[in-house]
Amino acid sequence: MHDLIIIGAGPAGLAAAAYAIRKRLDVLVISPDTGGKTNHPFALPWLHDYQVIRGKEVVSSFKRELEYIDFARRREQVNHVDHIAADSTTGGAGGDQFVVHTLSGDTETGRALIVATGSDRVPLDVPGELVYLSRGVGYSAISYSHLFIDRTVFLIGNGPRVISSALDLALHAAHVTVVIETDGAAPGPAQAERTLLLERTANVTVLRNAAVREFRGSEYAEAVVITRDDGTEERLHADGFFIEREPIPVSLPVADLVHLDAHGKIVVDVDCRTSRAGVFAAGDVTNVRSEQVLVALGEGSKAALSAYDYLLQA
Amino acid sequence: MHDLIIIGAGPAGLAAAAYAIRKRLDVLVISPDTGGKTNHPFALPWLHDYQVIRGKEVVSSFKRELEYIDFARRREQVNHVDHIAADSTTGGAGGDQFVVHTLSGDTETGRALIVATGSDRVPLDVPGELVYLSRGVGYSAISYSHLFIDRTVFLIGNGPRVISSALDLALHAAHVTVVIETDGAAPGPAQAERTLLLERTANVTVLRNAAVREFRGSEYAEAVVITRDDGTEERLHADGFFIEREPIPVSLPVADLVHLDAHGKIVVDVDCRTSRAGVFAAGDVTNVRSEQVLVALGEGSKAALSAYDYLLQA
Repeated sequence: MHDLIIIGAGPAGLAAAAYAIRKRLDVLVISPDTGGKTNHPFALPWLHDYQVIRGKEVVSSFKRELEYIDFARRREQVNHVDHIAADSTTGGAGGDQFVVHTLSGDTETGRALIVATGSDRVPLDVPGELVYLSRGVGYSAISYSHLFIDRTVFLIGNGPRVISSALDLALHAAHVTVVIETDGAAPGPAQAERTLLLERTANVTVLRNAAVREFRGSEYAEAVVITRDDGTEERLHADGFFIEREPIPVSLPVADLVHLDAHGKIVVDVDCRTSRAGVFAAGDVTNVRSEQVLVALGEGSKAALSAYDYLLQA
Repeated sequence: MHDLIIIGAGPAGLAAAAYAIRKRLDVLVISPDTGGKTNHPFALPWLHDYQVIRGKEVVSSFKRELEYIDFARRREQVNHVDHIAADSTTGGAGGDQFVVHTLSGDTETGRALIVATGSDRVPLDVPGELVYLSRGVGYSAISYSHLFIDRTVFLIGNGPRVISSALDLALHAAHVTVVIETDGAAPGPAQAERTLLLERTANVTVLRNAAVREFRGSEYAEAVVITRDDGTEERLHADGFFIEREPIPVSLPVADLVHLDAHGKIVVDVDCRTSRAGVFAAGDVTNVRSEQVLVALGEGSKAALSAYDYLLQA
């Protein structure tokens, strides 16, 4: 039985693990990889390192530490988590237990749990997307919008996220082209209003009923091929391309354990506590505004300190 | 008129400023210094850098950036902040304004505000305290408790904080001596229970009715001189000394502007919004579990992103 099981090893999970290790907890991190989305930073020929908010040195040092202390880590994915209340365990007074079932069918048991599973990006799944990932094609415009001063950008997405990103980019970029994907459902009034605002912005072109077919380029992505509903094909050049579909929080393994919001995000308080005592959550899987490395590091640290407090008092 | 005024330049204020600068907001940071409490790290002869949670590289780079972009900074303290609602301004549709009054009598006006004023430590004000600050005497035991394995520690404090710190240290240290300062008021039931738990811990000595007179040492602090109520003087040796009085959040300048909790901390939501639209807060001045550099950096980043969103939509 471990003191603490951390699911996920992106920036939030790594920071939590670093605190837990220093606090000498018996900690186990279950994650197929380490570093999470920081392994795919966005790059462009004219993008200099100093322009990006730092945090990657911290992530790197935590990665090295966890990879060095290898017994604290299992390279696996989690299927689901069961909760065993204190009074139904054989021990009785030992407190609640959380049984983590991995995809391979194994189980690990902990007295406390930190969920730092992040969110899944929803790719377009078209030729060129993977080739140019990190080389002109990215998934987080908000992190890079300030770098597009006097540049041109192409965005595609299916919800409020792409509208916000486009409005932000329009403040900096020379021109923004946005493909809004619709599933036929009418947007809410706030969303409709923001879309209207976007359409009225001088340096923005909004396209509907268009689909991305392919990204093309040489060393970096240079153009996107789109088809319109009438079948016509078009090639659009830009300096950067962002796929801004709503990410999907990886909360399914704990969906029966903790309260989720309408978007499937784990609801936490300011100290990363969930609705279930003993279960904490941090990073992109939560309702906290995150997506930024520094924010995820801070949230992971808070989750570990809250878990430590819980374990001291259990 | 600035887009954003940030009060304070500790880790939270610096992170907020870094985001605001990259987002090309017209930002002004008002603070007497930069770096906050990170300027006084705790040190001991046997304490190695790798044992401490990282974050100082990030703070250093943000400090250099803010000191370089000098026009974004005023070296001053803030007295109070006034709020002018949108409909009472001459502009009308320009949104709310926040007028920051400095101690020197000047004013600065912003459309949004981030309060990152931190908390004031309450020193003992005895000889040797300042001399050995950062050299064996510190104010944040929770950050260093894991380094006291098989070592001895001395703590003094006036509330729940010193009890928590002592319980935490007792898990690692060979021996913990705690002076609990009382103002005569009876502690609440939870506090009384935790104090009892502490007194029953084998490697803990709890002293009441004792006062610290002086810290003594050579290169590092080595002993503390205390007097008991009966006038007897005692010299206690230890490897580390922590002054764990409850810190005082610096929320007075905005006490009329936003909701504070019972401890005077600014109440924020998970995205660092306060009870007042347009006013955000981050770090040790808030009700968030902080005191850790990584947490403060994350909170400051969130506050800046929330302020940016607010300004885009205002």
